[in-house]
Amino acid sequence: MSTRPATAISPEQAAVEQQLVDTVVASFEGTQDPRLKQLMQALTRHLHNFAREVRLTEGEWNAGIDFLTDAGHITDDKRQEFILLSDVFGLSMQTIAINNETHKNATEATVFGPFFTQNAPEIPIGGDIAGGANGQPCWVEGTVTDTNGNPLPGARIEVWEADEDGFYDVQYSNHRVAGRAHLFTDQDGKYAFWALTPTPYPIPHDGPVGKMLEAVGRSPMRASHLHFMVTAPDHRTLVTHIFVEGDPVIEAGDSVFGVKHSLIKRFIQQAPGNSTPDGRDLGARSWARTRFDIVLAPTPDLM
Amino acid sequence: MSTRPATAISPEQAAVEQQLVDTVVASFEGTQDPRLKQLMQALTRHLHNFAREVRLTEGEWNAGIDFLTDAGHITDDKRQEFILLSDVFGLSMQTIAINNETHKNATEATVFGPFFTQNAPEIPIGGDIAGGANGQPCWVEGTVTDTNGNPLPGARIEVWEADEDGFYDVQYSNHRVAGRAHLFTDQDGKYAFWALTPTPYPIPHDGPVGKMLEAVGRSPMRASHLHFMVTAPDHRTLVTHIFVEGDPVIEAGDSVFGVKHSLIKRFIQQAPGNSTPDGRDLGARSWARTRFDIVLAPTPDLM
Repeated sequence: MSTRPATAISPEQAAVEQQLVDTVVASFEGTQDPRLKQLMQALTRHLHNFAREVRLTEGEWNAGIDFLTDAGHITDDKRQEFILLSDVFGLSMQTIAINNETHKNATEATVFGPFFTQNAPEIPIGGDIAGGANGQPCWVEGTVTDTNGNPLPGARIEVWEADEDGFYDVQYSNHRVAGRAHLFTDQDGKYAFWALTPTPYPIPHDGPVGKMLEAVGRSPMRASHLHFMVTAPDHRTLVTHIFVEGDPVIEAGDSVFGVKHSLIKRFIQQAPGNSTPDGRDLGARSWARTRFDIVLAPTPDLM
Repeated sequence: MSTRPATAISPEQAAVEQQLVDTVVASFEGTQDPRLKQLMQALTRHLHNFAREVRLTEGEWNAGIDFLTDAGHITDDKRQEFILLSDVFGLSMQTIAINNETHKNATEATVFGPFFTQNAPEIPIGGDIAGGANGQPCWVEGTVTDTNGNPLPGARIEVWEADEDGFYDVQYSNHRVAGRAHLFTDQDGKYAFWALTPTPYPIPHDGPVGKMLEAVGRSPMRASHLHFMVTAPDHRTLVTHIFVEGDPVIEAGDSVFGVKHSLIKRFIQQAPGNSTPDGRDLGARSWARTRFDIVLAPTPDLM
């Protein structure tokens, strides 16, 4: 592809193009569901505005059709190329932003990702989510409070993460549940658990989205992160990650735009033999610790 | 889905959303191909503008991912759901409009469609394109000229159409070539051939695009049409259809927005026994006739 000069379009041509947009928008007028009508008409306007602005060529239109076809064909019950596509255009993150509006000091949300499962075991406070997954042990602790600082006892915390090789349990064929668990805050809204120090990994990049990232000179790497989903009655469910301060991927750019400054946490490295918070004996292994204090917004009705 | 009130967004929230758009746009800055960079950055802006304008919910985002997945899975070497999707949003027609700018009195272009093939036989002027396809015989005649009215001898005309049951030859499994041919204009730029009077037919509507049309109360019917592709040296290739005046689908709305007023032609019905232009004996069959005078624009370099 080469650059095309911005073409001066005649008023006649502009009228032909606008008339077509108006006709397509009008074709949705009979939609019974008013929200569906709004979505279809807005999508029409934005799609056409894109094509008109860039003066989309027929070859480029064809390339787009081929791209979507390839994405459809690589997608199955384990691989979702359209979610990846949404992710790398920041559309997933924008949808999160739209649906989790900033609210006072509430903890910010980020992308859910495709690796959450319902079957994670419950662990007690201080338990270990590793379940046999490999990686450096990492002590994670904090509180769950409302935006006024009141502790939220009994808040449910789901956590999940990749192992040190960059894979989640569901990406292995052995059906092991590992690197995920849920627990509840205590009477003071406190929680703590052992996890693995997060490490960076690439999104699947052997398909059309990977080819696209290569063509535009972008890396498929995701910044190291630990997933959280936190729920408490009368509060907005929080889906987020914490990121590792100093991870070079943060500087280079997370491939799905999930990083927010407030979610970058200091993971303090501990030499082998340093005493652990709960007396756990890690032998000759190094470990790390971090703190994540979580603030939940009220549900929208209570804001 | 239900209507959502237009939410007043706080300046903080708007800043968060705009910052994300800017970050994604900036992520494409390193793209080597300047045209690809332009396309990716524009697509980013328009996608995000759509999501922000409608305040896209996570459920709607999920429905979109599922729709694209279903479209990908029904698409194979005979069925192209993504082209249908582009068609019913008028994006295919807009791409045609963008790449075939209005030029004086040149004949207007319309969608190419998925049913053209390279293997159509050559027929002499006055020959029959039916090749065994069923339908009412229809005499089609006209001229090919430049925008100044000069005849274009030797212009190549490809024509193709569905049979009276609404199917193109390639939609049957018998490998017959029927309802398509090519011919050349004579020394005076004139042409004529026997075809079939076009009849309306639906686009394939047993997949996700069909379901979408149903949800929005739109018909899958295409207005009756006969396809043309006309090429001549130093002239812009014309891909178009002619439509049948009085076809109720024109009034109700062609499902792919291909109809242009200038392309609607009068097809004059003839009683059985009416003498044919070339003396062909059609026995007890009725027939029709129409005229289509084609004007080619010069190639863009010569405009």
